[in-house]
Amino acid sequence: MKKFINKVDDILTESLSGFALAHSDLVQLHLDPNFLTRKQKASNKVVIISGGGSGHEPLHAGYIGYGMLDAACPGYVFSSPTPDQMLAAAEAVHADKGILFIVKNYAGDVMNFEMAGEMLAFEHATVLTSDDCAVINSTYTTGRRGVAGTVIVEKCVGSLAETGADLATCKALGDKVNTRTASIGVALTSCTVPAAGRPTFDIGDNEIEMGVGIHGEPGRKREAMREADAIVKDMVDAILADFTARNMEPAKNSEILLLVNGFGATPLMELYLLYNSAAKQLNTHGLQITRSLVGNYTTALDMAGGSITVCLLDDEIKQHWDSPVHTAALRWGK
Amino acid sequence: MKKFINKVDDILTESLSGFALAHSDLVQLHLDPNFLTRKQKASNKVVIISGGGSGHEPLHAGYIGYGMLDAACPGYVFSSPTPDQMLAAAEAVHADKGILFIVKNYAGDVMNFEMAGEMLAFEHATVLTSDDCAVINSTYTTGRRGVAGTVIVEKCVGSLAETGADLATCKALGDKVNTRTASIGVALTSCTVPAAGRPTFDIGDNEIEMGVGIHGEPGRKREAMREADAIVKDMVDAILADFTARNMEPAKNSEILLLVNGFGATPLMELYLLYNSAAKQLNTHGLQITRSLVGNYTTALDMAGGSITVCLLDDEIKQHWDSPVHTAALRWGK
Repeated sequence: MKKFINKVDDILTESLSGFALAHSDLVQLHLDPNFLTRKQKASNKVVIISGGGSGHEPLHAGYIGYGMLDAACPGYVFSSPTPDQMLAAAEAVHADKGILFIVKNYAGDVMNFEMAGEMLAFEHATVLTSDDCAVINSTYTTGRRGVAGTVIVEKCVGSLAETGADLATCKALGDKVNTRTASIGVALTSCTVPAAGRPTFDIGDNEIEMGVGIHGEPGRKREAMREADAIVKDMVDAILADFTARNMEPAKNSEILLLVNGFGATPLMELYLLYNSAAKQLNTHGLQITRSLVGNYTTALDMAGGSITVCLLDDEIKQHWDSPVHTAALRWGK
Repeated sequence: MKKFINKVDDILTESLSGFALAHSDLVQLHLDPNFLTRKQKASNKVVIISGGGSGHEPLHAGYIGYGMLDAACPGYVFSSPTPDQMLAAAEAVHADKGILFIVKNYAGDVMNFEMAGEMLAFEHATVLTSDDCAVINSTYTTGRRGVAGTVIVEKCVGSLAETGADLATCKALGDKVNTRTASIGVALTSCTVPAAGRPTFDIGDNEIEMGVGIHGEPGRKREAMREADAIVKDMVDAILADFTARNMEPAKNSEILLLVNGFGATPLMELYLLYNSAAKQLNTHGLQITRSLVGNYTTALDMAGGSITVCLLDDEIKQHWDSPVHTAALRWGK
């Protein structure tokens, strides 16, 4: 294992401290329990809190700020945060209109956010993301996994919350965006969890893991490495088949958002090549890509590989995707 | 070699096409010769054109847009663009106040931009970046190499050009920012050039290349892998020694910009840990970090590793760093 670290036990604290220093205009770090909040506490709005294991940066702390999250609770690498983190974050940011948790569907995260919810004195609700169409039930989940589509949910719900919408309305939009979103990933290499010190899985020089999870957990199939267009075809087909299976086949000329996400060790040059391939293939299916995002937005430590996410747009989702956002990892508008 | 590609010969065109599709609101791609321009041509300003070998994404095309570049000329992977690209780009974007080339100091780039300059009908000047303090003269350079500090030069000069400043003033600011900037990189792994199909250099599991160039060319020394703080100490010391050697030792409490740049395969979690380490060490030297940037801004294909850049700020540089920018890779302000 060759990584920029000091002591394995200190990785999270040191990395969070660096994040908070580099973005001291945007966020405030609280340690023990660990959580991050906006520098400027919001008032009179539903507050949005997310969290999950670390190692997926910029998820979630990179999305704290105006138009997106109010707080994030980072667990240790690939480990759920604990309820005391969510409770402390909620106490710090609540703003009189209730709390919405956005949680990726992993058993540990679901359990700990539920426990936090039970102990919480404030009105609250939860949006569970489950955009990964690769597998139903998996190493760490009952049901589908929540992966890169979570960023789209956080962006849209964060935007709506800024308008003063109530908790039920925010939850409804989050559930809608999640339902209209499907993702699938592929790994070229394993990631290495620092505390383990060795790759999570073995993979040959001519193999890929199709449908891999963002912790390196197994996907659909170990397959032969092949040209990017062929890999992307299988990914696009899986996503479209998923919408069809859920009776959500998009009509011709439907507008979509295409997110090509890197897992951490795949360079932008390759991600844009994947984007080009996916865009062309989605066009041949009669879909119009009118919103795009390409880069490392939901990573898996140092895994080489990436994921493709399609979100079926409507006017409401477009409005909230386009609205201003001011976070470390996504920033546009005023 | 396991990469997301189709045919090696098509990588650049496909990746550029994906970039242009994903950012069609910002850029326009021109092929044969290859160059990219702003979607909205600017008027009555010095136009800023950069370029260089591909494989350093988001450099340079990711910096096209309001407040930064007017055009970029991508060469093949790690190969200089040719003069016809610069001439075509200049013809497409010139706006009656002259053309400023921003060129990283590599022999091929310097030669080809010079040839373009000789053939150019428009008034022009060149800022040559040379922020890499690792080595004087190297595999591909006479003099110091231009690396991640180039982003700071492009940001500041791009901002100044938007104010209507003349060519000489823009060049002077570019030269000043370059002089006040020093960088050094370190590699944990080699990159793999697609056309070569194998790693550019061999490196052991317990070795690092200190002072590596952004093409994987040798740096100062092959060293033993060690804790991040120890690696960062040597990098920070090299940068400060460089300023001292150039009679630019910053006074106590000087303000600096700290850029921690990833080379492509190092995850954000580690980059923020490096930032934390560098920030603490720079503070002990009495320097105040008042501007920051952390992420993959000047990459070396799929190399694991990164670089540290320090820019000595003054009021002019701060003003132009802070001003609005609207590009694919840097975006803030209006």
